[in-house]
Amino acid sequence: MKRYGQVIRVKPERYEAYREYHRNVWPEIVELGRRCNIRNQTIFHRDGLLFRYFEYTGDDYEGDMAIAASDPRNQAWWELMQPMQEPLESCAEGEWWADMEELVHTE
Amino acid sequence: MKRYGQVIRVKPERYEAYREYHRNVWPEIVELGRRCNIRNQTIFHRDGLLFRYFEYTGDDYEGDMAIAASDPRNQAWWELMQPMQEPLESCAEGEWWADMEELVHTE
Repeated sequence: MKRYGQVIRVKPERYEAYREYHRNVWPEIVELGRRCNIRNQTIFHRDGLLFRYFEYTGDDYEGDMAIAASDPRNQAWWELMQPMQEPLESCAEGEWWADMEELVHTE
Repeated sequence: MKRYGQVIRVKPERYEAYREYHRNVWPEIVELGRRCNIRNQTIFHRDGLLFRYFEYTGDDYEGDMAIAASDPRNQAWWELMQPMQEPLESCAEGEWWADMEELVHTE
């Protein structure tokens, strides 16, 4: 299992809408995450910052993320979410949620 | 069990030192976290932002945090960590790591 921490900004004027969508996240999106070996996933917000934590239990992260990216329902979700978000300035071309470095973990 | 997401800044010039301390976190600090019912804790870094995720398994969060705060070894750790950190502008008086709002969770 590998832990992921990721960060992105939410546009302040879209925060309420973003929160509302996530209170009613589409079941297919949740199901797709499980199929792609994402577990124990949480998204947190404060001051326009979104933090995403999850645990990846598969053995082909790139492959599973490609499956997620190619899913039409997921693409429809992203088309709604992405205009509400702003990647960090340090993101590489095509990077959206910015991967963070794990400094410490305790069980 | 309750999930916590917290955020704080690390001073860019102290980031290397902060990382090094966490690569060699004191065993008593880890043990204290367990005694205070903190589980599955991870601290992530990107661009001067620190994101802390953990799961609290006790039934008296304030009480357990008070135990942690009164621990001399933990106080010694905080005296080293706090000068490297900068709380968010929105923090209340006395707030350090800023609690985030959970927007969504999936198993």
